[in-house]
Amino acid sequence: MKKTRAAVVGYGNIGRAALEALRAADDFEVAGVVRRDPTRREDIPAEIPVVSSITELENVDVAILAAPTRSIERQAKEILMAGINTVDSFDIHGQIPALRASLDKVAKAHNAVSIISAGWDPGSDSVVRTLLEAIAPKGITYTNFGPGRSMGHTVAVKAIEGVKDALSMTIPVGTGIHRRMVYVELLPGYELEKVAAAIKADPYFSSDETHVMAVESVDALNDVGHGVNLVRKGVSGSTHNQMFEFDMKINNPALTGQVLVCVARAAMRQQPGCYTMIEIPVVDLLPGDRDYWVEHLV
Amino acid sequence: MKKTRAAVVGYGNIGRAALEALRAADDFEVAGVVRRDPTRREDIPAEIPVVSSITELENVDVAILAAPTRSIERQAKEILMAGINTVDSFDIHGQIPALRASLDKVAKAHNAVSIISAGWDPGSDSVVRTLLEAIAPKGITYTNFGPGRSMGHTVAVKAIEGVKDALSMTIPVGTGIHRRMVYVELLPGYELEKVAAAIKADPYFSSDETHVMAVESVDALNDVGHGVNLVRKGVSGSTHNQMFEFDMKINNPALTGQVLVCVARAAMRQQPGCYTMIEIPVVDLLPGDRDYWVEHLV
Repeated sequence: MKKTRAAVVGYGNIGRAALEALRAADDFEVAGVVRRDPTRREDIPAEIPVVSSITELENVDVAILAAPTRSIERQAKEILMAGINTVDSFDIHGQIPALRASLDKVAKAHNAVSIISAGWDPGSDSVVRTLLEAIAPKGITYTNFGPGRSMGHTVAVKAIEGVKDALSMTIPVGTGIHRRMVYVELLPGYELEKVAAAIKADPYFSSDETHVMAVESVDALNDVGHGVNLVRKGVSGSTHNQMFEFDMKINNPALTGQVLVCVARAAMRQQPGCYTMIEIPVVDLLPGDRDYWVEHLV
Repeated sequence: MKKTRAAVVGYGNIGRAALEALRAADDFEVAGVVRRDPTRREDIPAEIPVVSSITELENVDVAILAAPTRSIERQAKEILMAGINTVDSFDIHGQIPALRASLDKVAKAHNAVSIISAGWDPGSDSVVRTLLEAIAPKGITYTNFGPGRSMGHTVAVKAIEGVKDALSMTIPVGTGIHRRMVYVELLPGYELEKVAAAIKADPYFSSDETHVMAVESVDALNDVGHGVNLVRKGVSGSTHNQMFEFDMKINNPALTGQVLVCVARAAMRQQPGCYTMIEIPVVDLLPGDRDYWVEHLV
């Protein structure tokens, strides 16, 4: 069976995890890693080319974009225009429809496929939310995140005066409400009380219960574990009180990298265009023959 | 917007629930109910035609087969041959690939769509199992059923000499192992001890922990609640100990009826052929515009 040749574009936490997932998948071949400084090989095995542009790699079927969310649209367009499929884990919920519309045109014009926002949320959680909405059409879904690091909130804290390093943990308190536990390393001469007040006044934190603590080392708290608890109680037909819960405790970059590899596989099986995960059959995420999975998983 | 005209074929617990779910869905119109004795209207609203053959109904887009599993293949073929889409909740796991292959030919030949095994297991659980297999490709999934009535086991008990009425409850004890709690009403002159021994020797029960109790009234124990606890612990990329859990506590016929209505909607959106739920995009289960759901659920 011909293997799918995939490139990993960007080599941070997610790129590294995507490469691991690719190497664990028998139906893929790693075409190479694309990163700004191709002389930095770090832990990349010697047989894998590291280059600064995807055009330097041969016969790439699909590019896994493991770059910052804000650069996804530009990168995806360039790569789609070369007729190469793309997948990404773009995670700004409100901007997903616009990205999808924009990449859909480019993908169709160049006979390529793009699957966007394919991580765990947005991503695999979206598939569960959609399924539950369908099987209990009336009701409320709560997506409870954590405990785990929030990248957006952490960046917001780091921008505050007096903060040397920071970590903002998202703690689920139920019904979609989250507590923010913020750990800061202060710069010399700054007081916790004032820094904490500035953090609590920030729009990222002002509507949530927020606790700020000074620590000696933020690095010592570092853990990439995360989780979700997604709950729906609703109505099927005319029957109330149908209860559903999806819960996971996971290594965050590892799961994101794995989801990206699954959708890279699925991208090879769709008609040209741009899709989110709820728009592709889940069986397309799996390797090999569809009949095998119908027999074993249905 | 043109409504989809659906017929409900069979009017037991599932047919009744499917009718309720159809009537709660704004994008559907009930074409009619098909049942052996069309003079039995029971609780069916006066404006809904009740007939003995689907050919008596006009402009049916999709037939929801709420008939016994063993009659599904014959009924589906007849209806597909008339160019009408079909959906069912065929639930004999080992026979799903054969049914799919058989109906796929007929559906394609008559430009129709059939979605099979669309209940909660097989059905919505299958979608979750497939998603988890994709995002943690190595590991073990356990599907734990119940507490809830097992139809197959109940029928097996009723066939045993000395049993007037019976109920077999499936109790999850974890890791896919189930305890069987069997409640029997005995016929006069039969001893519990001997009936229990016969039940425990039956292939349906011989490999499970089984408890048999005599009760005065099986009917007094009747409750259509059911549940599932689906657990996967696995590996994403090279990262172990990724933990996932899907749990639900539901009214069994209500959920099955609702799933059938969702897939009836999805059937209108697929290319001719026969599918299981893992082969159709989850967004197709939802009414209206795909863009709306991408914006609200991804």
